[in-house]
Amino acid sequence: MSKQDAIVLQKPGVITIDKRDVPEIKDPHYVKLHIKATGICGSDVHYYKQGAIGQFIVKSPMVLGHESSGIVAEVGSAVKNVKVGDRVAIEPGIPSRYSDETMAGNYNLCPYMVFAATPPYDGTLTKYYLAPEDFVYKMPDHLSFEEGALAEPMSVGVHANKLAGTRFGSKVLVSGAGPVGLLAGAVAKNFGATEVVFVDISEEKLERSKQFGATHTVLSSTDEDRFVSEVSKVLGGCLPDIVLECSGAQPAIRCGVKACGVGGHYVQVGMGKDNVNFPISEVGSKELTFHGCFRYKKGDFADSVALLSTGRVNGKPLISHRFTFDKAPDAYKFNAEHGGEVVKTIITGPE
Amino acid sequence: MSKQDAIVLQKPGVITIDKRDVPEIKDPHYVKLHIKATGICGSDVHYYKQGAIGQFIVKSPMVLGHESSGIVAEVGSAVKNVKVGDRVAIEPGIPSRYSDETMAGNYNLCPYMVFAATPPYDGTLTKYYLAPEDFVYKMPDHLSFEEGALAEPMSVGVHANKLAGTRFGSKVLVSGAGPVGLLAGAVAKNFGATEVVFVDISEEKLERSKQFGATHTVLSSTDEDRFVSEVSKVLGGCLPDIVLECSGAQPAIRCGVKACGVGGHYVQVGMGKDNVNFPISEVGSKELTFHGCFRYKKGDFADSVALLSTGRVNGKPLISHRFTFDKAPDAYKFNAEHGGEVVKTIITGPE
Amino acid sequence: MSKQDAIVLQKPGVITIDKRDVPEIKDPHYVKLHIKATGICGSDVHYYKQGAIGQFIVKSPMVLGHESSGIVAEVGSAVKNVKVGDRVAIEPGIPSRYSDETMAGNYNLCPYMVFAATPPYDGTLTKYYLAPEDFVYKMPDHLSFEEGALAEPMSVGVHANKLAGTRFGSKVLVSGAGPVGLLAGAVAKNFGATEVVFVDISEEKLERSKQFGATHTVLSSTDEDRFVSEVSKVLGGCLPDIVLECSGAQPAIRCGVKACGVGGHYVQVGMGKDNVNFPISEVGSKELTFHGCFRYKKGDFADSVALLSTGRVNGKPLISHRFTFDKAPDAYKFNAEHGGEVVKTIITGPE
Amino acid sequence: MSKQDAIVLQKPGVITIDKRDVPEIKDPHYVKLHIKATGICGSDVHYYKQGAIGQFIVKSPMVLGHESSGIVAEVGSAVKNVKVGDRVAIEPGIPSRYSDETMAGNYNLCPYMVFAATPPYDGTLTKYYLAPEDFVYKMPDHLSFEEGALAEPMSVGVHANKLAGTRFGSKVLVSGAGPVGLLAGAVAKNFGATEVVFVDISEEKLERSKQFGATHTVLSSTDEDRFVSEVSKVLGGCLPDIVLECSGAQPAIRCGVKACGVGGHYVQVGMGKDNVNFPISEVGSKELTFHGCFRYKKGDFADSVALLSTGRVNGKPLISHRFTFDKAPDAYKFNAEHGGEVVKTIITGPE
Repeated sequence: MSKQDAIVLQKPGVITIDKRDVPEIKDPHYVKLHIKATGICGSDVHYYKQGAIGQFIVKSPMVLGHESSGIVAEVGSAVKNVKVGDRVAIEPGIPSRYSDETMAGNYNLCPYMVFAATPPYDGTLTKYYLAPEDFVYKMPDHLSFEEGALAEPMSVGVHANKLAGTRFGSKVLVSGAGPVGLLAGAVAKNFGATEVVFVDISEEKLERSKQFGATHTVLSSTDEDRFVSEVSKVLGGCLPDIVLECSGAQPAIRCGVKACGVGGHYVQVGMGKDNVNFPISEVGSKELTFHGCFRYKKGDFADSVALLSTGRVNGKPLISHRFTFDKAPDAYKFNAEHGGEVVKTIITGPE
Repeated sequence: MSKQDAIVLQKPGVITIDKRDVPEIKDPHYVKLHIKATGICGSDVHYYKQGAIGQFIVKSPMVLGHESSGIVAEVGSAVKNVKVGDRVAIEPGIPSRYSDETMAGNYNLCPYMVFAATPPYDGTLTKYYLAPEDFVYKMPDHLSFEEGALAEPMSVGVHANKLAGTRFGSKVLVSGAGPVGLLAGAVAKNFGATEVVFVDISEEKLERSKQFGATHTVLSSTDEDRFVSEVSKVLGGCLPDIVLECSGAQPAIRCGVKACGVGGHYVQVGMGKDNVNFPISEVGSKELTFHGCFRYKKGDFADSVALLSTGRVNGKPLISHRFTFDKAPDAYKFNAEHGGEVVKTIITGPE
Repeated sequence: MSKQDAIVLQKPGVITIDKRDVPEIKDPHYVKLHIKATGICGSDVHYYKQGAIGQFIVKSPMVLGHESSGIVAEVGSAVKNVKVGDRVAIEPGIPSRYSDETMAGNYNLCPYMVFAATPPYDGTLTKYYLAPEDFVYKMPDHLSFEEGALAEPMSVGVHANKLAGTRFGSKVLVSGAGPVGLLAGAVAKNFGATEVVFVDISEEKLERSKQFGATHTVLSSTDEDRFVSEVSKVLGGCLPDIVLECSGAQPAIRCGVKACGVGGHYVQVGMGKDNVNFPISEVGSKELTFHGCFRYKKGDFADSVALLSTGRVNGKPLISHRFTFDKAPDAYKFNAEHGGEVVKTIITGPE
Repeated sequence: MSKQDAIVLQKPGVITIDKRDVPEIKDPHYVKLHIKATGICGSDVHYYKQGAIGQFIVKSPMVLGHESSGIVAEVGSAVKNVKVGDRVAIEPGIPSRYSDETMAGNYNLCPYMVFAATPPYDGTLTKYYLAPEDFVYKMPDHLSFEEGALAEPMSVGVHANKLAGTRFGSKVLVSGAGPVGLLAGAVAKNFGATEVVFVDISEEKLERSKQFGATHTVLSSTDEDRFVSEVSKVLGGCLPDIVLECSGAQPAIRCGVKACGVGGHYVQVGMGKDNVNFPISEVGSKELTFHGCFRYKKGDFADSVALLSTGRVNGKPLISHRFTFDKAPDAYKFNAEHGGEVVKTIITGPE
């Protein structure tokens, strides 16, 4: 069996280029992809630094990468959706086709999910990677591979907006202007939100949000009441009917709940500590709906690719750094050390 | 203007029988009711002891009572729903007819709500009380006034079950077997739940829950993991898809979130402290929907009266104590001092 | 009591300028409006020609007009939403505040609805007209009164799109490119539809639809199968997931149902004959949801005013003819005789 | 390869016992079932008499049977849900696991559905039959195989009630008291309907409906207005908020639409002619939601098995005739000739 290079997290703090088998198509519904671009996600960096996220623990070497795009290099005998040479974005979590959750339309909650670069499953950072035909999405020629790699984090934003019910006239607060927040805000705008208020502790990030649908920005405040009144002020005396909390930080969670208007929908997109000090009485007295948000399901990825392909969302301003595949270990190290200045790093290749 | 006796909370710790004007119908859609039975709610006792619940502060003397039934004594000129002599249950919160929330079908969230015995509005504990015709519900002759008074707390349970989406086959965990929890569980059963697991710290309360739809009971545990495994055990290896948390206590909230199954709905029915230590990562990784729950809206009260009228829910085992109207101050005192042994106290009358 | 001119349908075929009392505010939540512009609706012309629409029969003289905008001339003592001098669009159907339908959020279905210029209720075509404060909507200065008058027919389109669930990525077929169809299509675009296919028998109307969100147009065909294949062709091999049928004509209804994709939503916006030859097996085998659509409810009118005010929808190309108030009888006559060439006629004034 | 007997529709009017290969498990998620009981469906009889239903045309010999239960005789290597010897009800339509519809939770609409005894796919009437593990449902020992076979038609009723949103307090009209109607009514009752009105042209069938949840019965009338008033009368002046039309006959469809209350849900469960004379203006003016209803999806079959297993629905009174497997051709002939007197015929076996 032939071998290929793979970017492998050997253990916390150690990423190397290692050898892995080139995979072969066994299931007739699968395609073999040549990976062309891969984004680095906060979760990758977290595994690199800590070796675990919640119950997901890196116990043995794991290939990294789950935000990828590529070219179809080979197709199984039953494949109809794509053909060799197609440029595609890749949805990286493959559920069981037999679970109740999947068959009920909630494959993001499938207990048998195989998700790239989530222990114990290998990720996409190799030359050749296998995926089922319905988890790859054709991209138009004008969309670059690196933008295609953004479909993955954008899908989280699509899913969050669907949970929230964002529609024409929605007033949306996006808390945290990192990559997922920026994309979630841009999605909200395209789902019809007429007001998109970004909140962050960084003025630079707030400035960037203006390229991602922000109609208003508010600098975070440690004073919760003051924060609420500032949000209300920029919205002309209203509170948002939707809050997309993308930071996972306790102060942001508290502020988000307090700023969410009566009867509103709050979506917890960002992940942080397991337990927070939580203003539960606000949820009750305003009858909020507080949504957990886990990955994405059927239709979300397709919507992301459509938003990028039609130029409704321009992902380019998100890409701040690039490394080639053979420098991928440096890319992770850079992200781990310079988190504050990075927006999104793309690993290009391999050739 | 003639006067009538009223049960008045003068200030924290002081309830007296005081004089109030007998009200007169001005709005042609209103009816004048002769109050016949009134339940004592935990919130009444809270106002009695503490003088406030959250932002609702008793600043001046307030007539108590909001769980009442009575007889229609007089009707306004436009009234069609009821006639003099009708026995009715009374929905005690009257929203503005002009607010966006009301006109959109969410009158429980109306910012101009006038709710009986919630400061600064007087309650029902007088002989004559005014209500709009669409907020009184005819009861059949066989339903006693004291059972009719249970329609109010049951409506909270109806609303909670609608938020949760309880339906045939639902597996429901009811946390807290006080009056609202018991009624919420009985409602869940009638909404089609096939499993209703009651949880409480009191074995006696759990025993009582068997009259209110319990198919299983679990004694609370301070060990959260053990609690989850016990719930799973009684459900044959499943977790509930719905949790109705009716206690408001932090340990119960934490256990409820942890026991709620993947993709499930959790409704916070009970009210407690403003802030709790909250297992937020569980909400995210299981993509739970966590619902605030505030009072009830159109249809909820009617459903409660229907459940009681048809005998689908037998409220009698809930009524543990009775006091006559002229002993009402003693009734509150008794409830404040013997909370643990009281289920539901009814004030009968006045004549 | 002082008198004012009113445009009155005396009986089928006879419209005159008649005298009516100037109304006075009695309800403190009402405002007195000075009407400034009024659109002529197909239903007005229908009453003019036939004297009835379904069960609504003109039995006595009736003031016409229900698509109006104006200026607040006086406000009741409880009014908070608007003040004298405000320019407003007017929602012309006032439900009972006491019906179950209204209190449940479905006031469009209120059996006690008082709808302007629907027998036996008078319409808006007078100088002064009364409306409750929550049924008038402030317009910005830059929006003309005649565009404001379009908020009424647009609200039908908003309501239809909400019933259909139009969202980002929806593929919408609009059948019938008259005023309501054009506005419904423009709304669909703003609700996120990425494909809006207009269908009509008139090439001229299809041309106009390009100003109202059309991404494709298809000329109607009497051959149903051919029609479906043409729709599929313009959509790249797909069928629409939403059909908004705005003509009410049997061939359009049949074609619309046949063209609606599997699992799709079809909304019957237009009204025509009471009975049609209907391809019911298509509804079953594709599990379509076929929605009746009746007027509009809370939020719909506000969305329309927002769409017009922000320029998201430009209503100007819809307005093809104008008559002054004193020529209003001629305006109806013109519409009745030249239906084919009229898009929307506006009656301006009175002064 | 060994052979087994199969009940084969050779061409319209000709059913024989023929030889077919005994199938072997190839997919590790499949089980081999020994068929024990099979109900005869109206569709089987239709194929027998006409050779086609709509676009489904019997072009070559086809094994009949799709309402079956049996015993697990062998399991594939990946099977976890069931084991050899388990008694199971069998869901007979297997969708593609790769279609958008399936992955979105709507597998009933999957274009690649393989449905037993729907041309060109063979049915269940053999000794050994293969099915995926997630399409067989364990039955308790006390449930007979013939009752288990009723899970299939009941699933249509479950699906219809879910489309309708049947819940506590629903007033449901069931039009047509054949097997599907009877089961749909019994499901409605268990979903919380407090009123279930059965309508039929046969007094005998109406009498039977009392064993399936009927709270009221109404004999059909050719006078539509009179029909509506009779329905209203039995419901104390209300109209039903849900209509489940299970006959497919034009008069029943028209009456059902006319009797459906304002804002109500009408579900077209029965199939009849492709085109009907349809009172479309009623759908509009009452803003009805008219649902097509096609087969069933995830959860529906499980609900049916639960309803039967717990005795909530007693299917026994439905079973009017029994034939052994070797007499199956006679069973179809009998059903074709004595349709009026048959409720449900069960083919028992084969041994």
